[in-house]
Amino acid sequence: MHLSEITHPNQLHGLSIRQLQQIARQIRDKHLQTVAAIGGHLGPGLGVVELTLGLYQTLDLDRDKVIWDVGHQAYPHKLLTGRYNDFHTLRQRDGVAGYLKRSENKFDHFGAGHASTSISAGLGMALARDAKGEKFKVASIIGDGALTGGMALEAINHAGHMPKTNLLVVLNDNEMSISPNVGAIPRYLNKMRLSPPMQFITDNFEEQVKNLPFVGESLSPELGRIKEGMKRLAVPKVGAVFEELGFTYMGPVDGHNLEELIATFQQAHQIPGPVLVHVSTTKGKGYEIAEKDQVGYHAQTPFNLTTGKAIPSNKPKPPAYAKVFAHTLVKLAEQNPKIIGITAAMATGTGLDKLQQKLPNQYIDVGIAEQHAVTLAGGLACEGMRPVCCIYSTFLQRAFDQIIHDVCIQKLPVFFCLDRAGIVGSDGPTHQGMYDIAYLRCIPNMVLMAPKDEAEMQRMIVTGVEYTKGAIAMRFPRGSGQGVPLMEEGWEALEIGKGEIIRNGDDVLLVAYGTMVYSAMQTAEVLSEHGIEATVINARFAKPLDTELILPLAKQIGRVVTLEEGCLMGGFGSAVAEALLDADIVVPVKRIGVPDILVEHAEPEQSKAELGLTSSQMANTIMQAYFAQQLSVVS
Amino acid sequence: MHLSEITHPNQLHGLSIRQLQQIARQIRDKHLQTVAAIGGHLGPGLGVVELTLGLYQTLDLDRDKVIWDVGHQAYPHKLLTGRYNDFHTLRQRDGVAGYLKRSENKFDHFGAGHASTSISAGLGMALARDAKGEKFKVASIIGDGALTGGMALEAINHAGHMPKTNLLVVLNDNEMSISPNVGAIPRYLNKMRLSPPMQFITDNFEEQVKNLPFVGESLSPELGRIKEGMKRLAVPKVGAVFEELGFTYMGPVDGHNLEELIATFQQAHQIPGPVLVHVSTTKGKGYEIAEKDQVGYHAQTPFNLTTGKAIPSNKPKPPAYAKVFAHTLVKLAEQNPKIIGITAAMATGTGLDKLQQKLPNQYIDVGIAEQHAVTLAGGLACEGMRPVCCIYSTFLQRAFDQIIHDVCIQKLPVFFCLDRAGIVGSDGPTHQGMYDIAYLRCIPNMVLMAPKDEAEMQRMIVTGVEYTKGAIAMRFPRGSGQGVPLMEEGWEALEIGKGEIIRNGDDVLLVAYGTMVYSAMQTAEVLSEHGIEATVINARFAKPLDTELILPLAKQIGRVVTLEEGCLMGGFGSAVAEALLDADIVVPVKRIGVPDILVEHAEPEQSKAELGLTSSQMANTIMQAYFAQQLSVVS
Repeated sequence: MHLSEITHPNQLHGLSIRQLQQIARQIRDKHLQTVAAIGGHLGPGLGVVELTLGLYQTLDLDRDKVIWDVGHQAYPHKLLTGRYNDFHTLRQRDGVAGYLKRSENKFDHFGAGHASTSISAGLGMALARDAKGEKFKVASIIGDGALTGGMALEAINHAGHMPKTNLLVVLNDNEMSISPNVGAIPRYLNKMRLSPPMQFITDNFEEQVKNLPFVGESLSPELGRIKEGMKRLAVPKVGAVFEELGFTYMGPVDGHNLEELIATFQQAHQIPGPVLVHVSTTKGKGYEIAEKDQVGYHAQTPFNLTTGKAIPSNKPKPPAYAKVFAHTLVKLAEQNPKIIGITAAMATGTGLDKLQQKLPNQYIDVGIAEQHAVTLAGGLACEGMRPVCCIYSTFLQRAFDQIIHDVCIQKLPVFFCLDRAGIVGSDGPTHQGMYDIAYLRCIPNMVLMAPKDEAEMQRMIVTGVEYTKGAIAMRFPRGSGQGVPLMEEGWEALEIGKGEIIRNGDDVLLVAYGTMVYSAMQTAEVLSEHGIEATVINARFAKPLDTELILPLAKQIGRVVTLEEGCLMGGFGSAVAEALLDADIVVPVKRIGVPDILVEHAEPEQSKAELGLTSSQMANTIMQAYFAQQLSVVS
Repeated sequence: MHLSEITHPNQLHGLSIRQLQQIARQIRDKHLQTVAAIGGHLGPGLGVVELTLGLYQTLDLDRDKVIWDVGHQAYPHKLLTGRYNDFHTLRQRDGVAGYLKRSENKFDHFGAGHASTSISAGLGMALARDAKGEKFKVASIIGDGALTGGMALEAINHAGHMPKTNLLVVLNDNEMSISPNVGAIPRYLNKMRLSPPMQFITDNFEEQVKNLPFVGESLSPELGRIKEGMKRLAVPKVGAVFEELGFTYMGPVDGHNLEELIATFQQAHQIPGPVLVHVSTTKGKGYEIAEKDQVGYHAQTPFNLTTGKAIPSNKPKPPAYAKVFAHTLVKLAEQNPKIIGITAAMATGTGLDKLQQKLPNQYIDVGIAEQHAVTLAGGLACEGMRPVCCIYSTFLQRAFDQIIHDVCIQKLPVFFCLDRAGIVGSDGPTHQGMYDIAYLRCIPNMVLMAPKDEAEMQRMIVTGVEYTKGAIAMRFPRGSGQGVPLMEEGWEALEIGKGEIIRNGDDVLLVAYGTMVYSAMQTAEVLSEHGIEATVINARFAKPLDTELILPLAKQIGRVVTLEEGCLMGGFGSAVAEALLDADIVVPVKRIGVPDILVEHAEPEQSKAELGLTSSQMANTIMQAYFAQQLSVVS
């Protein structure tokens, strides 16, 4: 059977190990070829090919549930569940999603994109099963990195307390998050991997004691009492931590040995209560270049399969915001030893790996633990350090309470840097940075800013580092900057709450935030072609808003447009509308941004076009709202 | 020395055990008398009197840092740090706060109110100390309940990985959250408490083996090899889980034995790296009535010290919202076995203890684990159950990402019930339910509703349980309902997104949400006395907003007022303003609610008066905004 013929994972049932190995090879080929051609996640999926096949041979996925964590490792799952033929559309508009999605496929039993959720979701399904008196298996797969996330540990605590609830947790231990793991739990797992498998040591106790050189058969009458004595000393098993927490622990199992995997899973399915199977896998398995550089090949843009080298883009791009961010932060940190950069397992994504290399003492990776990252930053701030908490917009959602409770209520000066704010493109709805303006704006003692370009970002970094009255957050987008000249030093802090006028015109006032400032300028040019002259404000700050600048102009011009790359509900446009109403300035406000929908995966430019966020679309929207006459002349 | 003479905790240095015991008695007396007289938290503080004294005798609090978790157990700390004389003002306006507060006292090294934050904050301070090359001790105290919170476990994972960072974690193990604990971690701690203290078993190995009855001295030449053999079997210690995670574990220590506590803390301070001291305490210690009913005496309204009975309030009050909520949910759950009530360690607070008693199979307490609670609910919803996730507004902040990522992106029908929404009174800023409208409104696929009174809440509970298209959230306040008649059954679901007109008038349109509907009616009466007639809308839904009802009236009347008990930034008033602007209805909107400040602890009525939220104040605000003429006539 060829992989392309598999449309239902149950077709794996009854295949021999040899046949499964063939399928494994075909999965790896398809996986590699697809990602090499169009980009995507690489190492995570290659590492779980046998884990997926072995597990699925022991499950009936018409009934049983399988919950993958994060989802970037689910490409083999996708290839086995009817998406082989569409796999070339991966992460593209209307194509196969890069993560898991209930609406995409009936075998995606729970969606994912963020880490550490699978045990909670799986336990929910298991409890529902038992409540309904049904019988099916539930398997939650979780990475060793994701296991450092608090909610996974909350779920372990709960599941371990439910001895009557059958739940299989498969620990996919590849010794990595996206970056090498941080923390005591991964180190503990590592220790187990280095020990010989001893999962049944208690059961084999007599055998083991007999084999001690000095005991042998001669002492056997005493064995019972020795056993008691040793029990009093509480002989542990490998996996004692999980056993103490109520799980039956099995492993570590070689995650690339199908026979061993299948035998273990079959055995695990027989054990009542919560069971943890510890599977040892290699990220990038089967593609030597990826095995050797697991950080570099976690995800890839298109690359040459033979050399592993990225295929250079046709058009050279300006440096990415993240790169400029990291470069600038390192420069500032060199001058100010109080600056501490904090990442939650995203050293390369945030660019903080540069800080780690240059100033390791001013760098902290806390693992996948955004909540802890924020409160840790609060503790650092108490003692006069300048914590710079670098977390993507979408992941900072995890630490919402900590931002309120541990930072803002106490007015602690923590600088939040939210990369990937706005439309993120091919990662899709789980990763869109849509909500940060709304969810941060409602918190007292919080300053919000967003730069119009990478040069202004440099000044905002200085602003954030120098601001000591409370929390301050800067959002910036994924991808390339505007290509403007950058300074190597000597950046000047901005005045908090002050925007700037960057174009003058009498007909309409465009108030733009962050990435939308350049778009607003382009929109103004389009409007100008139709005889409409816009004033354009670069707001710089969403909170506090520059009401001194905005309000008089709004009153005078009488037509306001707000532009933001974020959700309209409660976002930047709302802030402007609120300020106008509070000042009794009753003028129309057209808010442009992302409506109350989920933005699916696509190229950012495609998403923007669908959302009506290109300059010509926005000009059109503005003309429809305020200048219907001009518009009718045009069309 | 008398407790009243202690204004600095260092005054404890050099006191004898006997003297400390006297101070302990004085703390308990003051604690008991104060709470009996004016209400407050009782059991938590009484349980840590000796822990506090013992710890403080080994610390120099001019330099060392102590971080309490939650803070409701910090009354002894407060009595030892200069707040003895003001203690009678506890939890009252301008009085001593019920939780910890950096701005209140220099020995409140980190504020608290929510659980599970202290290790993260302490580790941040310890890392700052080491970065600055300073030398002081950092002690984080955490409860066994709080240890089930994910962020505490994230912090353990991180701290356990930092062998060079000295950090003392004091585990205050009273076997309780507010309710009895849930989960494998508390059960594990319990197991340790029941074992004899064996923390140094490895060091004492030879001694122990010699004492095994059948071994004795005769086998001693072989002891070395036995030891090796047993080491291969990995002899564990009590506290193996913490040891495996990188901590030096000490305990369990009798938390009411000052000598043992002081000796242990002194020893702990000598050990480098992260150290966990496991202290076994009794909640309510020293007050027998509280020791016997630890749930009931967690916190108290004024009570008779001799009988322990609550002093009945002078004016009988209508039943509390929480009570009506629980009663109604139980009724519905009796009819629908798919309903599952979920609490995160707040069974009594949410009233779900009633569900637990009547229908234990339809009740889940996950422990202090809001993130897990929400994603577990998502898993239950996938399998057709009707999860009702009952979490206070302020605590649901912890699960913000899970609401987006695991529930709303997947359109899963989870019913969120947010108790304590709005002004909470004496608990203060850490507990105010101010942000939920703003932080939930920005999420797609989310319905938001709030009842005007407890009878409407009953209908909303039915509405929430019957709604299957996605997530739906209901907010309701702390405290008593309006005293309206309740139905025992036969509640009818409301139409999603439909409000109601409850008063007609031509001069101004009041659009009120939730608790503010009755206030709006009262405000309308005040306005009417001044010849101003208001239309009052009970919005019922903040999302979707009843634009069909609101917009034409707004356009017609031309003066809009919104009223909400929540933050104005991005809140309900913003929703109304957004809808009007989107519909090109350009009319003034006066938004009444909570401005962008922290609301301190006080009686709710005091807070409302300070915020200008009494009916007469609101009428005044409205007249100032829209009817300056009438106002000048009045004044």
